[in-house]
Order: sequence, then structure tokens, then C-alpha cells
Amino acid sequence: MNPFEGFLSTAEIGEVFGQEAIVQRMLDFEAALARAQGDVGLVPQAAADEIARHCRAEFFNAATVVAASRTAGSLAIPLVKQLTERVAAHDAEAGRYVHWGSTSQDVVDTAMVLATRQALALITADLDALIASLRKLYEQHGAAPVLARSLMQPAQVISFGFKLAAWTAPLLRARERIGEAAERGLQLQFGGAVGTLSAMGEQGPAVAAKVAEALGLRLPPTAWHTQRDEWLTLGAQVGILCGSLGKIARDWSLMAQGEIGELAEPSGGGRGGSSAMPHKRNPVSSLVALAAAGRVPQRVAGLLAAMDQEHERGLGNWQAELAEWVGLFVSTHGAVRALAEAAAGLTVDAVQMRANIDRLQGLVFAEALSMRLAKAIGKAKAHHVIEQWSQTALREKRPLKALVDLSVDPTLTPQELDALFDADRAAQPAIAIAARQFDGWGKKKP
Amino acid sequence: MNPFEGFLSTAEIGEVFGQEAIVQRMLDFEAALARAQGDVGLVPQAAADEIARHCRAEFFNAATVVAASRTAGSLAIPLVKQLTERVAAHDAEAGRYVHWGSTSQDVVDTAMVLATRQALALITADLDALIASLRKLYEQHGAAPVLARSLMQPAQVISFGFKLAAWTAPLLRARERIGEAAERGLQLQFGGAVGTLSAMGEQGPAVAAKVAEALGLRLPPTAWHTQRDEWLTLGAQVGILCGSLGKIARDWSLMAQGEIGELAEPSGGGRGGSSAMPHKRNPVSSLVALAAAGRVPQRVAGLLAAMDQEHERGLGNWQAELAEWVGLFVSTHGAVRALAEAAAGLTVDAVQMRANIDRLQGLVFAEALSMRLAKAIGKAKAHHVIEQWSQTALREKRPLKALVDLSVDPTLTPQELDALFDADRAAQPAIAIAARQFDGWGKKKP
Amino acid sequence: MNPFEGFLSTAEIGEVFGQEAIVQRMLDFEAALARAQGDVGLVPQAAADEIARHCRAEFFNAATVVAASRTAGSLAIPLVKQLTERVAAHDAEAGRYVHWGSTSQDVVDTAMVLATRQALALITADLDALIASLRKLYEQHGAAPVLARSLMQPAQVISFGFKLAAWTAPLLRARERIGEAAERGLQLQFGGAVGTLSAMGEQGPAVAAKVAEALGLRLPPTAWHTQRDEWLTLGAQVGILCGSLGKIARDWSLMAQGEIGELAEPSGGGRGGSSAMPHKRNPVSSLVALAAAGRVPQRVAGLLAAMDQEHERGLGNWQAELAEWVGLFVSTHGAVRALAEAAAGLTVDAVQMRANIDRLQGLVFAEALSMRLAKAIGKAKAHHVIEQWSQTALREKRPLKALVDLSVDPTLTPQELDALFDADRAAQPAIAIAARQFDGWGKKKP
Amino acid sequence: MNPFEGFLSTAEIGEVFGQEAIVQRMLDFEAALARAQGDVGLVPQAAADEIARHCRAEFFNAATVVAASRTAGSLAIPLVKQLTERVAAHDAEAGRYVHWGSTSQDVVDTAMVLATRQALALITADLDALIASLRKLYEQHGAAPVLARSLMQPAQVISFGFKLAAWTAPLLRARERIGEAAERGLQLQFGGAVGTLSAMGEQGPAVAAKVAEALGLRLPPTAWHTQRDEWLTLGAQVGILCGSLGKIARDWSLMAQGEIGELAEPSGGGRGGSSAMPHKRNPVSSLVALAAAGRVPQRVAGLLAAMDQEHERGLGNWQAELAEWVGLFVSTHGAVRALAEAAAGLTVDAVQMRANIDRLQGLVFAEALSMRLAKAIGKAKAHHVIEQWSQTALREKRPLKALVDLSVDPTLTPQELDALFDADRAAQPAIAIAARQFDGWGKKKP
Repeated sequence: MNPFEGFLSTAEIGEVFGQEAIVQRMLDFEAALARAQGDVGLVPQAAADEIARHCRAEFFNAATVVAASRTAGSLAIPLVKQLTERVAAHDAEAGRYVHWGSTSQDVVDTAMVLATRQALALITADLDALIASLRKLYEQHGAAPVLARSLMQPAQVISFGFKLAAWTAPLLRARERIGEAAERGLQLQFGGAVGTLSAMGEQGPAVAAKVAEALGLRLPPTAWHTQRDEWLTLGAQVGILCGSLGKIARDWSLMAQGEIGELAEPSGGGRGGSSAMPHKRNPVSSLVALAAAGRVPQRVAGLLAAMDQEHERGLGNWQAELAEWVGLFVSTHGAVRALAEAAAGLTVDAVQMRANIDRLQGLVFAEALSMRLAKAIGKAKAHHVIEQWSQTALREKRPLKALVDLSVDPTLTPQELDALFDADRAAQPAIAIAARQFDGWGKKKP
Repeated sequence: MNPFEGFLSTAEIGEVFGQEAIVQRMLDFEAALARAQGDVGLVPQAAADEIARHCRAEFFNAATVVAASRTAGSLAIPLVKQLTERVAAHDAEAGRYVHWGSTSQDVVDTAMVLATRQALALITADLDALIASLRKLYEQHGAAPVLARSLMQPAQVISFGFKLAAWTAPLLRARERIGEAAERGLQLQFGGAVGTLSAMGEQGPAVAAKVAEALGLRLPPTAWHTQRDEWLTLGAQVGILCGSLGKIARDWSLMAQGEIGELAEPSGGGRGGSSAMPHKRNPVSSLVALAAAGRVPQRVAGLLAAMDQEHERGLGNWQAELAEWVGLFVSTHGAVRALAEAAAGLTVDAVQMRANIDRLQGLVFAEALSMRLAKAIGKAKAHHVIEQWSQTALREKRPLKALVDLSVDPTLTPQELDALFDADRAAQPAIAIAARQFDGWGKKKP
Repeated sequence: MNPFEGFLSTAEIGEVFGQEAIVQRMLDFEAALARAQGDVGLVPQAAADEIARHCRAEFFNAATVVAASRTAGSLAIPLVKQLTERVAAHDAEAGRYVHWGSTSQDVVDTAMVLATRQALALITADLDALIASLRKLYEQHGAAPVLARSLMQPAQVISFGFKLAAWTAPLLRARERIGEAAERGLQLQFGGAVGTLSAMGEQGPAVAAKVAEALGLRLPPTAWHTQRDEWLTLGAQVGILCGSLGKIARDWSLMAQGEIGELAEPSGGGRGGSSAMPHKRNPVSSLVALAAAGRVPQRVAGLLAAMDQEHERGLGNWQAELAEWVGLFVSTHGAVRALAEAAAGLTVDAVQMRANIDRLQGLVFAEALSMRLAKAIGKAKAHHVIEQWSQTALREKRPLKALVDLSVDPTLTPQELDALFDADRAAQPAIAIAARQFDGWGKKKP
Repeated sequence: MNPFEGFLSTAEIGEVFGQEAIVQRMLDFEAALARAQGDVGLVPQAAADEIARHCRAEFFNAATVVAASRTAGSLAIPLVKQLTERVAAHDAEAGRYVHWGSTSQDVVDTAMVLATRQALALITADLDALIASLRKLYEQHGAAPVLARSLMQPAQVISFGFKLAAWTAPLLRARERIGEAAERGLQLQFGGAVGTLSAMGEQGPAVAAKVAEALGLRLPPTAWHTQRDEWLTLGAQVGILCGSLGKIARDWSLMAQGEIGELAEPSGGGRGGSSAMPHKRNPVSSLVALAAAGRVPQRVAGLLAAMDQEHERGLGNWQAELAEWVGLFVSTHGAVRALAEAAAGLTVDAVQMRANIDRLQGLVFAEALSMRLAKAIGKAKAHHVIEQWSQTALREKRPLKALVDLSVDPTLTPQELDALFDADRAAQPAIAIAARQFDGWGKKKP
């Protein structure tokens, strides 16, 4: 990975899609293929064993494989050539059976599916950690009143737990949808030259079933060389997860603004400092997640744009898809890891949340007041008087409550008025909703 | 729609997302809301009836609503204002209860969900017609041998039915996945100002349930003002469908090239003519679908890029999402309608398919020959001799079969050689796979 | 335009790319073509005059032209057919010369160029107004100290004029670059069926020159049917302008947050109110510009993705480009108009700007202090002590200045310390830079 | 680079943006900064020399810099820390002056500008080679008649040189536009913490000028930390170049189809073979360029989407831009290198080009015939009779010329008819246009 990608992602995911790992994943396919063909008798058992024995990445130079692939037209071609030469050097007979009846795309796509399974494991582990930290924050700070904001303006009062639930719910759903999409999308690719497995005659399906089983992959009804819809469904779900992570990071970065100060990402140990300004505590995890959320839509677009794959194997579009795919996962893991790290040490300042409510002169309670007055004097009139009081409050920097003319509605008591301007009371509906959600989630393993 | 969009889409989908229709969909929400509040006693029954009575688009000027929305900040604000005025003019008391406890985003999102349900009905109907036409083509021409092509080069021989199955399978899966996504994504939006329905006190959930029921929409666990993941899952699936349509159009446009001539879109009645060249028969349906497939990835990117919606209501991103959403559906319906029209009258030229195989001097049978020879002389040597024969064939423009030196493998008989170069025999594996697929699909209603 | 687009754009740009206008632009081309061919004698003068006489949009039904275009494969085909019929009905001889030697793409592309020239005029006018308002704001509030913020954290103190200059400079450059790109990109499209103007024999170039002159368009070296680079350079520049507008809107929306309150968009007259919260003053112009900035990158991607236009006329990609092009301009005009409107009435609160500086306990002056101390005790040590003081300041909510231990650097006087913590003094470098920039711009007409 | 990127690009560009190179570019900035500050006396000359002496990448571990950057929030922070420690270990006094008055973004952006200058040199060199090869092909095969094709259907006859000119012209313009954009966009980034260079007092501008001069970069009017328009203009131009390369690759891949056979990419030496089909000659350079052209629009979208950088330094968007930027250049160099390699050995089959014209039964001469007949019998009637003859020709597989009924126009002689159906004559207008273009280009150095 170039440093600008590395800065935004993790070493682990870089390794999953690195040269050595992908060469090993391609060799995993070749080994499983040889063994399956040995089992059904297409290939002598000894040859199958010999082939499988050589399917170890350390026997090959991944960099020369990649370098040769550019002119060969596929990553598989130079590797298969090297594998064949190596096997043949040990056993000429076995050399004849390497890659038998398969095609480059079978090798490359299956390798990508195997790597993707690993990538999903990384993403899911960090996603679970993030979800667990959000629940912990809920347990600690769930009831704290905080401003709701719409169109980037303070609106009313909710609870911090309500925000936590709104961040958590899409992650839990993403977990579930990604699981479903992986169930369908992590399929063996195996069709031979044009998708019919014709070179293996009657035994093609049996070989396919054995390869799928050995690799722990779903066996698709046919090869999906140029039918990318199930695969892209998985990619799209990862993209949607990244969007939900970006939404969390957007909110955190807004709440962490110095002037607002409701949240802070963890600091210390070289985290989020500034080279020029010693006092700064930069929200670097939000940074990483926002960068991912800004880039990932283009990765998904790249995948979709590559769907028009010509005939039985695409020219350029399939290959573009593979490269975009890596970028999608690399960015997403960077984002989820960053947020998981930050969530584990997030500083929540409930005092500041309340101070921010207070500084707004009670204007955020205007709707509650409006609804209450509307019962007596009608919505239009209520809206009108409150608009006037609000403007006075803003102009004179006075609290709205002090400007309420109780004579407008004789049924409104001072006690009721106090209640309308009480942040804790205002937060109750939000608290109830968040409790219902987190309670429900507690019952099932996330 | 501007003419460049109109050229690529249909009038029907234009109407679904047109000004009048969207105003009506917003009024549908307001009517359902008033009635639900009447039912639970939040609003006097007479007021609810009065409000509902006025919720008809013909009472309002959609163009002025849109014009006013730009500065108001939402399409709902001017409409609610006009509706309130109209109701109040008839019944001042009822006027007080219009839009009670709701917020602009509730109205707009729910209207969009309702319009989307209609859009999906249009798309699905044309998708079913397209699938039915592909099946009919399978029944007529399924067994015809045709070139498989990989990397835009002739590869081997398959059947036309195999191609039809490869076009149909992603459409059937799209049908299913869109159905699942719609099941989850076509949800009522209803949360009030900040998502808590607080203005309605204890009765919020009951009102929500009734509104959902009246509109036939799923009732979500909470408002999803800034949780767009389920919604975007639906959008992503429509985007993936469009990619699969683009793949079909790509193949058709390649097969319809004058020099290849395996397919032609229907002509006549002003269809696909050229203003300058009277003989041309342009693949205009492929054109429309390719245009959609080129644009839709950017629409999905636009949706994903809009996911970072701030706090409890986004500024700019939510609104961008709505506009991108329309473009996604408008393009997709254009594409599926175009392909359905063309599929219903597609000309298939099986003679030309065979002629294209024949013109390639038997080179596409080289793999079969290679596999056969490999059994006797090993893969490497087989590859080597065939490469030489192939180059001679190309250089001297002679058929490959005539160049095969049977002495290379004494077990290979002339009869076996003929069989290796027989297109009908070569198509058999593909024919079997396609038959299995279409038979399976026949059992379930598509 | 559908209401979700209309909400984000203007009626004027909608008309420029509307059905009637585009039909008229196509007719403008046909009239200029006939007249040019009359001039050089390719067409009888009387026939040329007769054709030109009928080239008025009100003679045709734009909606039926668009409806017929879908199956015809081009907007030009049905219009040319109707024009030919109309002319022929008046003068059979003249009917023979309609559209002589031209092709659909000549008509459609040239019409698009003409419409784009109008669109640019709209955009430029609002851009000039926006620039003028920013200058006015500079004159009024340029010297006000305001927080600089990096990574969404308060950093140091600059002047509001420095921010204004940073918003204005990209707009001035966009103005210039768009002008250059329009100079090259607003070209006549005229090549006939395959780009050679062959139907007109020797006179093709002369006709082309006359048509270009009549329409006021640049005459390109050849037709650019599938060479879209100059055209897309213009599109890309409009996209970049929109990005710069988005940056302004992002800053405004952040500064307008209720808790920060340094700016407010104009209100009143139904502008930016909330249906649920009477006190809100939503930044609706920022909303529109942010939506555009979120969408326009995908429009530009759509244009670039359409560049692989096959051979001498593309299938689907050219047509996709045209539709994306409209979206690009519609969004951009919405954005620039919205910001121009807001800038004309922007409320700037210099008192609040200073209050925000003050609330940060002097931490934003830490770098200045650090640089000063570094001279005496070295950068590392200075950084270290200030980090400690800063943390104490944050923990104890005390001003940093009060925590400075002067014994660390005996050369630092209390007066110097005061100066280091003086916002007006801190703003001086920014004030000087902004003055230099605005002064320079004043000398050339924007 | 992961193998899927490596497969589509070059090792050289990988190195330009690799860890070691970027660390060196950042150190180039630090060295130039120290020297400039030494020159103006801000830093003791000995300290400046000491700092510069350590600015060599081999002294640092690039991988640990990148690893630390993720939590630090910038690539520059850990490098500056390590550099400071290293310098201080040799000379404590000098250590105090490392990175003096600068900020992370100054270092990172300037490093990126320097790397981009190298990347442009690589791209331009291959672009020049590609242009030279296209000219050579023009000299060899420029006059060969070839089918023009519109909407992927055969249209009329042009020359191969006309196609070469249409491929070359956008490349020459890209060369020029990229040059202009680089002239403006390759600017020093230098503003200090918030863009004012305030830490250096009066000497900031002088230091900036010296750093720019030392690095050979343009000195901008101010820092452009969050004004990315000039920079993105360069990026957009690279994107447009890539689109023009994709158009060439699209045409090549279509002309190289086995059934069309007008072109072939070079083969041999492991180039473009198939693992399953020994006879195949895959257009692997077109593959690489098409993949780039499919991906690069999303890179440009990624750049544009990142323009809304907050205040004086963006959170997430700036960092996303840097990573997208690398992808843009990596893909583009892969594409231009691939096409340059292929163009140098492109096989052009003029005989097959003519055969493809002949196989179309003269239908592509229909327009010429139509124009000729129209003079005598009017356009409408000419169109009508030719449409009938064309359909007979298609139905009966006979040449169009044989079906022309000369009695329709008694002035049409058999000799004239022959001329209308002569491919060489039909190619003349195209030949003349291409000659004019290539002659013009010959006069200026490309």
C-alpha cells in the first residue's frame, strides 16, 4: 500500500490482499482442484498429491508473478506456468495435470473470494468491538440530555442514548445484511474456459462440488464469470456499512468541535496531536472514517460500472472490478478499526451537553411550548407568538421562558411551564426509545 | 424531465416522480396522519375528516409548491402551509390539526417511499416481460451453437441458450433481492421533529402503526431520518439490476455489429433508423440500457455519498439523496423497458452464428483438441504443437483440422478428430447447463 | 424537472435545458445550416430561406419529439422528420434540402453547445453577484478576528477577511478557467454521418465556417463526435467551481451552528423556517450548495465514464453524457444562485467570533507562545511545558495565560505575554494577506 | 501495491508514490525549509546545514512512519518527530529548528506535488511514445479504407488515417492542457498552522520564495490548504487524458475482435496468451487501458467530493483526496504505458479492413448514393427507394449496386455508379482531413 492508503487503513487488511497472500489463495485453489480431480479419478492420485505439495506461496516469487501478469493478461497465467514448471521438475507426469480444465478467472476469482472471507472476518471483529463499546457508552451515559440537531441547527432535546441507538442500529443491521450477502456471495468460481467445465466431461460438477467443499465455499448453480450480481450485493453492503460509519464519524466530529465539546476522541501516546499546536486533540479516528466514507461510494460506483462484462469474460471491466474491490475493503476496515479504537476510549462530557442546551436560551423547548399552546389557541397562533418571543430572546439574549406571556393561555400554569423547559423531562421520550432498542439488542447476540 | 432524460426513459416513471404525483403522495401522508390521529382521539374526528377531504393534489398548484420550497428548505413546508390555509378557510378548528406532531422529513420521505413503490411496480412489470421474452427466445433458439468469447476474442463454442440463461439468471435474482429489499426498505417515515414523536405523548406509536397500516408500509422500529441503510439497500439492488441490464445490452450490441450479425433489434415504425444512412438498423434499446448502465453507478455513488447525514436531520446530503434516488429509478425503468421492447422482437440469426464459428478456421476447437492430446502427450507438449498448428492456420488461412498431424498421437482417430471439431457436439455441455437452469426456473413463477 | 431537482435548482436553468428550448436550439442549427448552404450555392437561396422560416419551436410539439426520440435513437431524427414535412408542405423543393449533409449528432451536440452558452451566462451572472457580495462583506467585517480551525478543531486566530479571501480566490480562478474552457469547448459540431462532411464535397469546410459564424461558435479543426476532451474540460471546470461553492457552504454551515453563531443566512419571507420548530433559522442556501457539491462529483464521473465512445459515434455513452451534462449545470446553477442570495444578506456576528475565541481559554494562542518559548528553551521543551499547562487549563477550566510560569523563560515579559494572547494582534498576519488579495482583485474587473 | 493494482500499472509509478519516495519528498521539503530559513537568518546557518544533512530517506524507516501516522493524524507528524530526534541527537541546538514555522499539511502537500511532477514525467514520456507510434502507423497505413461505424453499426467508408488522427488529436491536446494545468497546479504548499506563516513574522514570504525556488515549484499567492481548485484542475486533466486513452482502447478492442480482425496487439513473449486456449491473442493492453478508463472517473469523483474541506484544514476529505490522487496517476500511467507498448507493435490488416467493407454488400455506400439521387429526385424519394433496395439486398444477400435501378435517375451513369461504390474514392475526404491534421502536427514538436 502506498503511504496515503496505509495512513487510512490497517496492516492486517493490507496483508490479506497483499501479493504473497493472494498467491497463496490462488495456490489454495490449485491444490483443492488437483485433490478433487484425484478423488474422482480424473488425475492420478499421486499426481494430485504432488501438485498439492507444491502449492505453497513461499516456493514462488510473488513480485515476479505480478510483474509478468501485466503482459500475460492475468495474475493466474504466470503463476500457473511457474507452478507447472516446478511440479514438472519433480514429476513430469504430475506437471501435466496442473490447473487441468480450469481457467484463469476461476483461479483469480476464487482467490479473491477466499481473501474476502478473511477481510470480512477482520471487519466483523472490529465492528463487534465498536458495537460493544457503543453499548458500554449507553450504559454509562445513556440518560444524559443532549441537543438534537436538524439541518445543523439545534432542534430539541433528546438523550445521548438515543444518539447511541441511532448509531448502533445500522451497524447491527449491516452485520446481518453482510452475513446474508456473504452467505450467497462467497461462492466458488469454477467454469473452465467458457463456463461449461467442458474439459472435464461428465465429472465437472463432481469436481466443482469437491473443490467448493474443500475451500468451504458455496457451490453456485453455474460459473459466475460475467454474472457479478451476487458478488456486488456483498460489495454494496460493505459500502453501505461504510456510509453508516461515516455518519457516526460526522456526528462525532461535530460534537467534538472545540466550541461544542460534548465528545472527545481518546488522546495520548502520539494520538491526534498537532505538529504546530500543542493543545490540539484532533479527532483522528473520525478523520479516517470520514475519509473512507468519502471514498467508498466511488469504489461501489467502480464495481457497478464494471458490470457490463462482455460475453463470457470481460475485457478490462472484470479486472477493474477486482482492483476496486480491494480498495473498498481496505477503506472500510480502516474506518471500522478507527471507530472501534476511538469508541473504546471516547470521552463523553454530559455536563457540556447540558451547558449547550442551556446556552440556547430555552429556544429548543419552543416546539414543546408550541404544541402545548396550540391546544388552546391553535397551531397558527401559537407558532406566531412563539416566533415573536423567540426573536426577542435572540435579540435581547434572554431566556425564552422569561418571555412567555402566560396570559396568552390562562390554562398554562408556571409549574407546567417549568416542566416544558426541563431538559431531563424533555429527554424522556428519547430515553424510552433507546432503552427499548438496546434491551431488544441485548437479547440476541450482536 | 429534460429532453435528454426523456429520451432515455419513459413517460410513466416521469409521472410517478412528477410534481403533481409527489404532491399527492405528500397529501396521502397528511390524510393518513389526520385519520390516524382522529382514530386515537388526538384530533377531533370531524377535523380529521375535514383535513383528509382536502388532501387532493388538484386543490394545489404543484409548481408554486416547488418554487417556494427552495427558500423554505423543504418541499413539505409550503405544501403544509397551503393545506393548513385551505383547511382553515373551511374549518378554522380543523386547520389547527394539520400536520400535527409531524415534521417535513416525515412527509417527504414517506411520499418518496410511496412513489418508489409505484416505480418498482413499473420496473418489475417490464422485468417480468423481459424475462418471459428471454425464455421464449430460449425455446426458439436455445440449442443453436454460438461462439463463446472471452476478453472480446472468440474462445469456444457454447449454445445461444447458455447465453440466454446467463442473461436471465441475474434478472431472476434481482427480482428476488429487490423484493426482499423492498420488504424491508419501504417503511413509513414518522418521527416528528427529532425522531421521538414526542409531540404526541404516549400515543405516538399507536398513531405510527395506524399511518403505516393505512399506507400499506412497513412500520420501522424507529424513525430512520438519518439511518438510511435499509433504504439504500433497496437503491443498491436497483443499481445492481441496472448493471445486469447493461451486461445484456453490451452483449447484444456486440452480437448486432454488422460484421457479426448474430442478433438484431426489431426495426420498423421509425425504430432505430439513421437520418443519414438509410440502411442502418441501430440497436436503440441497447443504447438506452447502456446509457443507464453508464449513469446508474454514479447515482448509487450519490446515494452512498449522502449517508453522512448530520445528527438528527442532514443538511444537503438528505436532499441530495432524494434527487439522486429519482435519477436511479428513472434510468433503470428506461433500461428495462427498452430491453423488454427489444427482447419481444429480437431477430436471432442462428445461421450467422454458425457461420461465425466456421469462419474462425476451427481455432475455437483448439482447447478440446488440446485436452484430448494432453492425455497422450502431456499438457505442455500438446499446448506447444497446437500453438504451432494454430499459427500456421492463421498465416495460411487454412482450417486447423487440416493441419493436425495425427502421428503426434496415434490413438486419435479421424472420427474422433471430426467430433472434436463439430460445433453441435461442442455445444452440448452448454445446452445441458441451460436446460437445467430454465427447467428449474419454470417450476417457480418468475 | 422533478420536484426534488426543482427544489435544488432554478427555473431559469430548467428552461434553458427544457424541451422547448432544446427544440429551438436544434432548429437554430438547421436554420444556420440551410442559410450557409444557400450562401455557398449548395441549396437554392429560396429553399434556404423557406427552411429557415420554419425553424421556430412554436411550430412543433416538443413533447412528441421527445416521445418519438426514444425509439428513433436520437432527438434530432423526429424533429428533422417533422421539419422536413412542414417545409415540404409549403414548398416541396425546399423540403429536399432540410438537414442536408448533416447528421443527428451535429444537430444535438450543437444545440447542447448553444444551451450551455446560455447556462454559463446564468452561472456567471450569479457567480459575479456572489463575488461582489463577498467583497462587500470583506469591506464591512474584514478585520474581525475569528478562530481558524483545522481538522474541525480551533487552531489559531485569523481574520474574517482572510476567510473571505479564501472563499473568493477559487471563485475568481473558476471564472477565469471556465472562460478559457468555454473559449475552446463551445465549438460547432458539424461532420455529417461519419465526420468528414463528405456529402457536401469541396464545400463542406466553407459551410462549416459559415454555420459557426452564424451561431457565434468556435470552428473546430474537425468534428468532435467522439473526441470529447475539450467539451469535458469545460464540464470539469464547472464541477470544480461547484466544489469550491461546496467548501463555502460547508464553512457557512459550520459557522452558523447554533452553538457557534458566527454567521447566519438571511431569514424572513418563508426562508429557512422549520415546520416543527418556530425558532429555527435553517441555512437553506448552504443546504442547496452542499447538495450540489455532493452530487456534482458523480455528474463529472458520469461524463468521464462516457468518454469511451465507440468508433465514429458512441452507443449509449454519448447519450449518457448529454443527460449527465444537464444535471451538472442544473445543480451548479442551483448552488451558485443559492449562495449569491445568501451572501447578499449574510449576518456576520463579529462579537460572537471574538466570544468563541475567548471561550477557548487562550489555548489557540499556544502556538504563538510555543514559538516564542522555543527560541529560549528549544522547541521540544517548549512543546512539553505548554502541553502540560494546556491540560491543566482544560482540566481546571482556567485561562492558559494564567498558567504560564514566566520563570521558564526569564526573557518573556508580562507585556509580551499579553501581546501573545491578544486576538487583534494575532489576526494581523491574516489581515495583511487578505488586504493584499482583495486589493489585487480590485484592480482587475472580476 | 496490491497485485490487482500492480497487474494494471507499472512498477515505476508505484515507486514514485511508494513509502520510501514519499518520505524522501517530505524530507526534501524539510531540507529546503531549513536552508531557506538559514539564508534569511531565521535559523543559524549551522543548524540549517545540520538539518539538511539528515534529510535522507535511508536514515528513516518508512514503514514505521506510516504505521505511526494512523494515530498521529498525519504522515508528517511521526517523520518530523523522528527527524527532530535524529538531528537533536547530533546537535541539540539544530534540533530546535526542525520544521520551524511549518505545519503537517505543508510537508505532505508539497511532497505530493513533487511526486506528482515525477509521475507526470513518466506519463508524458509514454504519451509521447504513443503519439509517435500512432504517427508511424499513419505513415504506414494512413490511406487504407476502413469502415466508419456509428452506434456500433457500419456506416460509411473512411481511412484508417482518419481514425489515427481522431485518436491522436485528443492526446496532443491533453499534452498541452496537462502542461498548462501543471504550470499552475504544481505549487509549493506553505502556510504554517493556519495559512498565514505567522510564526515566521515578516520573513514568511521570503522563506516561501526561497523554498519554492529550491524545489522548482510555483510560488502561489497564498497557501492553498483548503483551496484545491488549481490542484484538481490538474487531476481532472489527467482524468480526461485517461478517458481519451480508453476511447482508443475501446476502438482497438472492437477492431481486434476475431470476426473483424482489422487490428491485433503484438504477441509473443508471454503476451496476451490464454491459459486454456492456445490460439488466443488477447488484447491485453486494451484491457489495461479500459480498466483504467473505467476506474479513473471514480478517482476524479473522489477528488471533487473531497473539495468541501472545512475551514483552514479539512478532516477526512483532504486525506481522502491524497489517496484518490495516487490512484488516479497509478491507473493513468498503467494505461498510457500499455497503449504505448501495444502501438509500437500493432498489427494492422488493411486487407481485412477492405474485406469487411466488401462483406457489407455495398450498403455503406447508400448515403453517397442517396445524396446523389436526392439531387435528381429529392431527398425523401431517394431515401425511400434506397431503403427498399437495401432491404432487398439484406434479404437476398446481394450487393446493393446490383439492385440499383438506373431508370430512377436517367442522369446517373454506370461509371458514376461504380465510383459511388468505390471504397478508395469514398475514403478520399477522410484521407484529406487526416493529412491536414498530421501535417499540422508535424510542424510543432508534439
